[in-house]
Amino acid sequence: MSSIAQKFETLRTDNAPGQEARQQAESLDRVMKGEALCGRPVDFSHGDVDAFEPTPGAFETFCEGVRAGGRQAYTEYRGKEEIREALAGRLATFTGAPLSGAQELILTPGTQGALFLAIASTVGTGDKVAIVQPDYFANRKLVQFFDGEICPVQLDYLSGNERAGLDLNELEDAFRAGVRVFIFSNPSNPTGAIYSPHEIRTIAELADRYGVTVIADQLYSRLHYSDGGPYTHLRAVASAENVVTIMGPSKTESLSGYRLGAAFGPAGIIERMERLQAIVSLRAAGYNQSVLRTWLAEPEGWLEERIRLHQNIRDDLLATLREGGGIRVRTPQAGSYLFAKMPELTVSPLDFVRILRHQADVIVTPGSEFSPHALDSVRLNFSQDHAAAKAAVERIVVLADRYRK
Amino acid sequence: MSSIAQKFETLRTDNAPGQEARQQAESLDRVMKGEALCGRPVDFSHGDVDAFEPTPGAFETFCEGVRAGGRQAYTEYRGKEEIREALAGRLATFTGAPLSGAQELILTPGTQGALFLAIASTVGTGDKVAIVQPDYFANRKLVQFFDGEICPVQLDYLSGNERAGLDLNELEDAFRAGVRVFIFSNPSNPTGAIYSPHEIRTIAELADRYGVTVIADQLYSRLHYSDGGPYTHLRAVASAENVVTIMGPSKTESLSGYRLGAAFGPAGIIERMERLQAIVSLRAAGYNQSVLRTWLAEPEGWLEERIRLHQNIRDDLLATLREGGGIRVRTPQAGSYLFAKMPELTVSPLDFVRILRHQADVIVTPGSEFSPHALDSVRLNFSQDHAAAKAAVERIVVLADRYRK
Repeated sequence: MSSIAQKFETLRTDNAPGQEARQQAESLDRVMKGEALCGRPVDFSHGDVDAFEPTPGAFETFCEGVRAGGRQAYTEYRGKEEIREALAGRLATFTGAPLSGAQELILTPGTQGALFLAIASTVGTGDKVAIVQPDYFANRKLVQFFDGEICPVQLDYLSGNERAGLDLNELEDAFRAGVRVFIFSNPSNPTGAIYSPHEIRTIAELADRYGVTVIADQLYSRLHYSDGGPYTHLRAVASAENVVTIMGPSKTESLSGYRLGAAFGPAGIIERMERLQAIVSLRAAGYNQSVLRTWLAEPEGWLEERIRLHQNIRDDLLATLREGGGIRVRTPQAGSYLFAKMPELTVSPLDFVRILRHQADVIVTPGSEFSPHALDSVRLNFSQDHAAAKAAVERIVVLADRYRK
Repeated sequence: MSSIAQKFETLRTDNAPGQEARQQAESLDRVMKGEALCGRPVDFSHGDVDAFEPTPGAFETFCEGVRAGGRQAYTEYRGKEEIREALAGRLATFTGAPLSGAQELILTPGTQGALFLAIASTVGTGDKVAIVQPDYFANRKLVQFFDGEICPVQLDYLSGNERAGLDLNELEDAFRAGVRVFIFSNPSNPTGAIYSPHEIRTIAELADRYGVTVIADQLYSRLHYSDGGPYTHLRAVASAENVVTIMGPSKTESLSGYRLGAAFGPAGIIERMERLQAIVSLRAAGYNQSVLRTWLAEPEGWLEERIRLHQNIRDDLLATLREGGGIRVRTPQAGSYLFAKMPELTVSPLDFVRILRHQADVIVTPGSEFSPHALDSVRLNFSQDHAAAKAAVERIVVLADRYRK
């Protein structure tokens, strides 16, 4: 196999969220037991943007962008200056550290675009990169794509809610061994854990001591539950030259259909990201950028209400999942993901995921996407219609019980 | 300098189209002569989407996409199936060869996104890649980014309109020397040349003989002038496994603000491109994909009228440029670019480009972006307001004369 063929072998997306439609329907007959369970189909692989309305004014602001014509269609590769300037102020307030819209911020096609550019701009061939297990699956794939060397650090996320559970000794060992870049999501995707102030300060100190660049994916940091404990923005406590932060309007705001993201950090890295964006996608779609005028500027009370509704769904699903006794799950402190560890089953983890689809009309993302040590877990995005999600989780519990060893 | 720092040094965008706003205003006082010329500013670095209306129904179709909600916001990474299926039929008709919407087509964030994914999916470290000089600047930068080895092939575009002017012997020499991938734009960006049927058939034959994958950027192939001669689609005459074709609604349709592109070719390469898109940007913005329902399906007569208006601008600008006698330019056969070779000047080519901006309020893209052998040329996108473009080109002619050696 050629080197490029091998590289693409590591990028398989067959089990990635949203790609289930492309899976070949192989026979599960050998392993399936009992009847199918009826209920409204639920796709937990991503949030249901029909369940939660987009932020007020987002569509109208898009339309104004179209009416503005050329000056909104063509922007600098890093995004329209006036939008960056306005956004920088709001991001500085939200994250607790100053930010230059002119030099330290780039708008991207979705937060995936921001993550891609940030990793491409900091990871060279053979560079050691620390990633967390479990964590967002693209982190691993991106490091592999740029021929970086992965140094995994474990997250003991089931040991309690006081801390996310990052193994800080393992992290320092990795940094000491020559890690150049550390990538992590906070709140954690897939577990919903928030890193404690102590964990964040330790990451900042270690990054400073060992000269490591940290890419902090804070996509879901706005959807912060009332019982979630404190949230510490890494950039507020770390040296400014060490941290690239990634955010964007997405599931929280139900704006995923516009594909918008933002990365902010040291001017030098943002400059590299812009140079690369010029050959990757030119820019976030010009008209779509206009929608960012409404972001972090929603009507008073809007975010609180959205958090409250998600927290209610979360609590209902957690109660259901914990009923059976065999399923273990951490209480998400922020975001709309939960990561449920199944009991020992008579079928393989991937077959169980397919069984959920075929016998319960429920789509979940297998744990293998997030960590080689989480094969027995599944991720659910619970930004869904409340009743449908609750019923779907009841079906998961029934099937976990049916296939229990 | 580290390897990654060097890599980004080759990706400088200071003179790239649309980035002029970020240039530091260094003093031109030493070299400037005479007074500034008055006139409405014209930015020839890209088309003016305000001069030509977007295709009828595009905006309304976008709005329907937003109203469709989740099923339009989240699509497969390669794009929404129903849109791909419909588009495949129209692309097959346009290019003259069958196409499977399910297996051989991917939707991307702009044609830049398609080009990035196509090159990333075919060019590995050390692979030899043939590119044309002059040609679209991103081709070179993308090959360099993926550590490919560039084998330039010259385009003698000023030798007449019967053929684009590709040096077919040089191309075969390059293929014989081990080139794996050949990238070219047809119509040529920046020259507006259309490759002749003989040139296209020879490219197809050579690709077949030497097992070369060809990436054909046909972005501007719809804007084909009545006197432009025949246009041959490479995929209609080549082996299906050799060719990736790139198109998209852009300047022709005034839809650049939506950032949409499409790549179509062998299922194996499209599959790789999808895997990569999953970590680069996930997908073309879901709502925006909806706009593709109108593409290649415009009302009768719409395209002909758009071509006629552009042809009129083209002819006026060519007449003005050729008046002075010192400027050489090929008659564009398709697309909205023209590439004008300046007479010998008393100032450096890059200073002349800056002088045009400061003394004539005219932005052009320097030839150095397209070829190391075209430093004395400038590219103009003439999809502009007719009268303003004509007046701006008159100012270019005056200044070319003023600074002539």
